[in-house]
Amino acid sequence: MAVIYPRMTVVGCGLIGSSVIRAAREAGVVGEVIVADASEAHRQRIVELGYADRVTGDIAEAVTDADLVVFAVPVLAMGDAAKAAADAMKPGATVTDVGSVKGSVAEALSAALPDSVFIVPGHPIAGTEHSGPEAGFAELFRNRWVILTPEGREDAGYLEATGRLSEFWRALGANVETMDAKHHDLVLAVTSHLPHLIAYNIVGTAADMEEVTRAEVMKYSAGGFRDFTRIAASDPTMWRDVFVANKDAVLEILGRFTEDLQALSRAIRWGEADKLHDLFTRTREIRRGIIAAGQETAEPNFGRDHDKQK
Amino acid sequence: MAVIYPRMTVVGCGLIGSSVIRAAREAGVVGEVIVADASEAHRQRIVELGYADRVTGDIAEAVTDADLVVFAVPVLAMGDAAKAAADAMKPGATVTDVGSVKGSVAEALSAALPDSVFIVPGHPIAGTEHSGPEAGFAELFRNRWVILTPEGREDAGYLEATGRLSEFWRALGANVETMDAKHHDLVLAVTSHLPHLIAYNIVGTAADMEEVTRAEVMKYSAGGFRDFTRIAASDPTMWRDVFVANKDAVLEILGRFTEDLQALSRAIRWGEADKLHDLFTRTREIRRGIIAAGQETAEPNFGRDHDKQK
Repeated sequence: MAVIYPRMTVVGCGLIGSSVIRAAREAGVVGEVIVADASEAHRQRIVELGYADRVTGDIAEAVTDADLVVFAVPVLAMGDAAKAAADAMKPGATVTDVGSVKGSVAEALSAALPDSVFIVPGHPIAGTEHSGPEAGFAELFRNRWVILTPEGREDAGYLEATGRLSEFWRALGANVETMDAKHHDLVLAVTSHLPHLIAYNIVGTAADMEEVTRAEVMKYSAGGFRDFTRIAASDPTMWRDVFVANKDAVLEILGRFTEDLQALSRAIRWGEADKLHDLFTRTREIRRGIIAAGQETAEPNFGRDHDKQK
Repeated sequence: MAVIYPRMTVVGCGLIGSSVIRAAREAGVVGEVIVADASEAHRQRIVELGYADRVTGDIAEAVTDADLVVFAVPVLAMGDAAKAAADAMKPGATVTDVGSVKGSVAEALSAALPDSVFIVPGHPIAGTEHSGPEAGFAELFRNRWVILTPEGREDAGYLEATGRLSEFWRALGANVETMDAKHHDLVLAVTSHLPHLIAYNIVGTAADMEEVTRAEVMKYSAGGFRDFTRIAASDPTMWRDVFVANKDAVLEILGRFTEDLQALSRAIRWGEADKLHDLFTRTREIRRGIIAAGQETAEPNFGRDHDKQK
């Protein structure tokens, strides 16, 4: 494929940043790749892995002459990273990010950066429970969705920059959707933030039981619990930031969840078997829809027993 | 392996019942296999799949002369199934079950069955979200745990029967543990029943949002939500029965979960970032323990991206 951005700078080279680099290189849509990362250990790994043409701890140096700058740091670190980049940005460059919260990140980016750049906030709905530069892989975005939340600007330069960024993500295998940042934050509170919160919480509850030992929890986890531990093994800093930055939407959805859980608890207490059966039947449809939408494998146990035919 | 039970009868041939048959046949530990199933459609499938030497809708007929009877029906149906079997049971036969709740099932079995049989309640901690006779596979129990909750009997016949049943499960690839029925119900409330309840609840909450469409929930489910839908696609009747039958333990654990969730909600509202980070760090260890215990794959995304190296 033709090069879309002659020089791409990735600020923060964890799971997502390193996957963007691998995928973009594989697609042939970037020329030079520059990485800025605050961690000395990460920088060393990045050099060893051969991801970048240049690796530095200095953000201003890294973004100089870049055509695309991708901020891939935890959500609450976006503002400072953008401030460090501001004076060195090339006019007309495109700036995006990969944060799981869009409202507050969009504000932080536009407050920090000069008017001469095109800011198009973004969020690839993809990831694993692993983190760090070695966790990245080129196929992470394949058939996943990337949501862009462009500013209200209608000028030709901005629309062109948004179109080019969409083309970039599509070249990496993703589907692209645009929406309002506020709506993004509500949708993701449902499909990502609340699930993580619940998973962290249940794993914490189980760890603190006095009558049931941790060894028992681990041994008998195949009954359902283990699926939650995968999500609850995600990067703590990233997720701390998400909950702080998307507080309002998360608390709203959490309120609904808790209300529904109280009703379910009451149905159990009063032995309302039909109510339970109705809910448990209804939820099956949602999974079928997700599989039909190509966002999940239909293999039982996520294919964990895929050796069963052997 | 040598035959342990010359004649095994399985009452209820869904995911677990059919897996027991497949695994027992593969291990060569049973002679004749008889199946009783209440569903005409199931019986037809079972005949087509060639699982059994005889398939019938009549439980009494099925258990006649059986050396091992495995009740594999939903938890609340155990009592009636045992009543239907009672008069036809061979003295000295071993009776077990595979129910996810042990206290109430043990009571129902011992109330229904004659003193001349050996009742050893059991629970294999294994399963997938699929159900029905075609969902079974021989490797389901491999490296999983089976918990037996023997009665307090100390007579030689009973101890011998318990030992033989343990040997049977080990031949199917499982590890066997014995514990008190009440403790089992508390442990499983943590590692299986609460996770299912939470998963059903969050999928229900998401389905009922007005501001976020179902299409959006499905499209953007890869951010975490989809992992919950797998569990929430489990058999509705089985799970309705579990919550009715294990009410006390489930409500106790649910109370703790809710309390912890309120504390987490408060930490988000007040921006207590350190508290969030602490919890999110602590939960990672539990997953490492589960992987070390051989109950989970370390593959990212449950190996869903296992084609990533291609």
